[in-house]
Amino acid sequence: MTEPLHPNHERVLVPHDGLEVPVTRVHLTDGRTFDRYTTAGPERDEAGGLPALRAPWLAARAERADGLVTQLELARADVVTEEMRYAAAREGCDPELVRSEVAAGRAIIPANVHHSELEPMVIGRAFLVKINANIGTSAVTSDTAGEVEKLDWAVRWGADTVMDLSTGPGIHETREAVLRASPVPIGTVPIYQALEKVNGRAEDLSWEVYLETVLEQCAQGVDYMTVHAGVLLRHVPLTVERVTGIVSRGGSIMAGWCLAHHEENFLYSHFDELCEVLAAHDVSFSLGDGLRPGSLADAGDAAQLAELRTLGELTRRARERGVQVMVEGPGHVPLDRVPEQVHLAHDWCDGAPFYTLGPLATDVAPGYDHITSAIGAATIAQHGTAMLCYVTPKEHLGLPDRDDVRTGVVTYKLAAHVADVAKGHPGARAWDDELSRARFEFRWHDQFALSLDPPLAQAYHDATLPAEAAKTAHFCSMCGPKFCSMRISQDVREAFREKSEEFLALGATVYVEDEAGDPAPSGARLS
Amino acid sequence: MTEPLHPNHERVLVPHDGLEVPVTRVHLTDGRTFDRYTTAGPERDEAGGLPALRAPWLAARAERADGLVTQLELARADVVTEEMRYAAAREGCDPELVRSEVAAGRAIIPANVHHSELEPMVIGRAFLVKINANIGTSAVTSDTAGEVEKLDWAVRWGADTVMDLSTGPGIHETREAVLRASPVPIGTVPIYQALEKVNGRAEDLSWEVYLETVLEQCAQGVDYMTVHAGVLLRHVPLTVERVTGIVSRGGSIMAGWCLAHHEENFLYSHFDELCEVLAAHDVSFSLGDGLRPGSLADAGDAAQLAELRTLGELTRRARERGVQVMVEGPGHVPLDRVPEQVHLAHDWCDGAPFYTLGPLATDVAPGYDHITSAIGAATIAQHGTAMLCYVTPKEHLGLPDRDDVRTGVVTYKLAAHVADVAKGHPGARAWDDELSRARFEFRWHDQFALSLDPPLAQAYHDATLPAEAAKTAHFCSMCGPKFCSMRISQDVREAFREKSEEFLALGATVYVEDEAGDPAPSGARLS
Repeated sequence: MTEPLHPNHERVLVPHDGLEVPVTRVHLTDGRTFDRYTTAGPERDEAGGLPALRAPWLAARAERADGLVTQLELARADVVTEEMRYAAAREGCDPELVRSEVAAGRAIIPANVHHSELEPMVIGRAFLVKINANIGTSAVTSDTAGEVEKLDWAVRWGADTVMDLSTGPGIHETREAVLRASPVPIGTVPIYQALEKVNGRAEDLSWEVYLETVLEQCAQGVDYMTVHAGVLLRHVPLTVERVTGIVSRGGSIMAGWCLAHHEENFLYSHFDELCEVLAAHDVSFSLGDGLRPGSLADAGDAAQLAELRTLGELTRRARERGVQVMVEGPGHVPLDRVPEQVHLAHDWCDGAPFYTLGPLATDVAPGYDHITSAIGAATIAQHGTAMLCYVTPKEHLGLPDRDDVRTGVVTYKLAAHVADVAKGHPGARAWDDELSRARFEFRWHDQFALSLDPPLAQAYHDATLPAEAAKTAHFCSMCGPKFCSMRISQDVREAFREKSEEFLALGATVYVEDEAGDPAPSGARLS
Repeated sequence: MTEPLHPNHERVLVPHDGLEVPVTRVHLTDGRTFDRYTTAGPERDEAGGLPALRAPWLAARAERADGLVTQLELARADVVTEEMRYAAAREGCDPELVRSEVAAGRAIIPANVHHSELEPMVIGRAFLVKINANIGTSAVTSDTAGEVEKLDWAVRWGADTVMDLSTGPGIHETREAVLRASPVPIGTVPIYQALEKVNGRAEDLSWEVYLETVLEQCAQGVDYMTVHAGVLLRHVPLTVERVTGIVSRGGSIMAGWCLAHHEENFLYSHFDELCEVLAAHDVSFSLGDGLRPGSLADAGDAAQLAELRTLGELTRRARERGVQVMVEGPGHVPLDRVPEQVHLAHDWCDGAPFYTLGPLATDVAPGYDHITSAIGAATIAQHGTAMLCYVTPKEHLGLPDRDDVRTGVVTYKLAAHVADVAKGHPGARAWDDELSRARFEFRWHDQFALSLDPPLAQAYHDATLPAEAAKTAHFCSMCGPKFCSMRISQDVREAFREKSEEFLALGATVYVEDEAGDPAPSGARLS
């Protein structure tokens, strides 16, 4: 349906343990191939729908699973589900690792039983770092077809999950279209739709309106929901002296409700009922950080940490009821304080997967906040954050367009990969090495094909050296042929290899003797 | 001469200790002002020249400095020079801190005695992190006027130093124009011009040709020079099995020369003579890392570390001869191994300021290497790197245009500021807080004026909400008026402040009693 990102890319289904798991296979110009994790999804049918990959698994399980519904319940019962095997095959790991991490609550597989089109994936610190992109209509923009296009676009560049943050009219229809078209988990923030139902008046919200909304979304197949149940009445005064108050939409709505009614947050007081609903459909919680810091000044303050303590309590309550849980995090955090954010979250929330928005490591660069946040994101993921919510260049300023979404997704893919490499994740570095070898050997087309954004890499090369001959030339535009360090370096290598015996002899005289203390020809000495 | 970046910016000279030191004064809409460090330089005269700020200082010193020329020699003799006082005033610190750091070799003030137009600045880990941008002609592109334009452009966006990496014809004339037009230190790599003199044949290079080139550049006023004296004959075999060999141009040229002649690098064997020349003009060494890793795979390998050991030896030899020294670093490094790079450099090179290119924290994102490198740069600067050489989006792919230079400089300014904040540098966070307050109070024009790239921030806002009324509206395009968390949050704040007594009473019942163990209205409990 959609063109691959590069002519030498191919979507291949790899047989694995009775399943067929997709990869992006990169065909290299020397005849080898390199397989990469893919999110892009299969071809659609003529009506725009996806194959119902999970339908037979779900049907079979309904007959034999003894009432166990959620991946957490099944994992605890030592059942290795098809979803676990599928996710493990994508990760290149043992399905038992997926099962045990899910059972321990350190990983989740967001997979609503009504989202049969899903290609399952796993979110947890033992696995590849994932990224989320946001889409959604607003009161004045976008339509259903437009949202499906946005979904395709984000997933094409590598979004592992997509949150539909629609507001305004037609939310139900838009979400239905998005879910039926999505091979990746879809998240929502149900309070947005609930607020529409009460005409935008936060004080008119109620548990009943909210529950109705959640039931509707569960039945459609939403895979995870952000719930701001940790914003308690007693936390609100802690935000009054902040530099940037409450910057989470859901958090501010619930704080406003609490104050208007002088009652405890109904999401908190009805949390156990909410757990029963989510468990019945295997919808995962994404426990929202409604009091996340919106500036460096507010990072790690009393309001944020009080809410995080509450999220720990809610994590335990949800897990007792069989619901999978991840926990959301900031926001804006000075770089030196980034590691403590994830360590506290893991510590207080019993190791639940942490899912952060950035964090931005400075406030002074609006227009560049995909970068200020990628700095924080790479570091927080290096320290164990499981999923990163992307930030686009328009953050704080305006609505992202297609280019902004692409920039945001690719920036977060690179930040996630930086963390995978820094964590020593098995196999992560092989991709860097493959691209670097292509670079050193002047295999330009391979360098483009192996890159995160092949069309952009090629376009930048074409901007200076558009001729096809330049794609095999043993130099590039930066230094030109005379100054090309890599060409000279290859000559050096050739010289060594052709004269290996001579150089071995040299090594025995010039190099080794020198190390032993004799002066080198010029008087050189290693200190 | 050039328009300020925002209509509410003003270049102001602040009287300080008998000197007048420039700042960018940001006029805020509430009548206050916020002063920021500025690199942009004074107005030019009609011939395009700058005032010779340092001429009287240098003249007076020639009469009384007792043969001491370099800032290092003067600092050791307990002289606080005008350059130290000027740099201290820009930093907002005690001039004695600058003197003592320079005396200890932990900081340098690159300031050739023939560059009288310079506004002095200091590079060292005790000071604000600095950034460098590169300009330069190539064999086929650019002219002298074009290079001065590039200089102005880079300095306008905040480059603290500029390296002129020109190759091809007219190098001398281009550099002369750049120096006379530059308020920031200018660095060069003399081997490039020397290579032009021998028609690009590395094997025809000689100490004599090189020395002639250095003398010419010293007399013109070049403030610091990259010298690849650490690439020793015995190091070259260590690069043969690398994934990306030798990626430094200067490093590969010297390695090629060593192999062609089977002799030690003449920059190393004549290093003491070179020191005498640089000392006579107070030109600082930037000891080049000719064997820096060009891929994650080669980071911290035997070749890189052997050269770094040699750079330590050279640092000590240069300092003994009164020459200021900084040491260059990589390149490409996995994020978890970034801190060790700066720690080793400080340890082996006796605390000399470290000056790194990035490093890139992954190899897989050509087209986004300003970002992959900003991630490494922020972290390495957080751990003590004093100056960061910028990387543009075209790195590895093509020649940067004006937009790429702007993107690269602003990206590196934000990375440097991330590090300043993370290091707890005095006053650094005040800028973030000022901008965040403007954001929370919907002072859009102040948010733009305080940002690193005001025109871009405003353009992004205009793209969604172009009307002037939107610049004072108490919401933005992301959430719209109904969902605006910051508006709701301000309402919450108002509610609290208006009813402070009532809330104090509430605190005594709902909040405090709950903390003490009584059930909150909803049964809420802090865990």
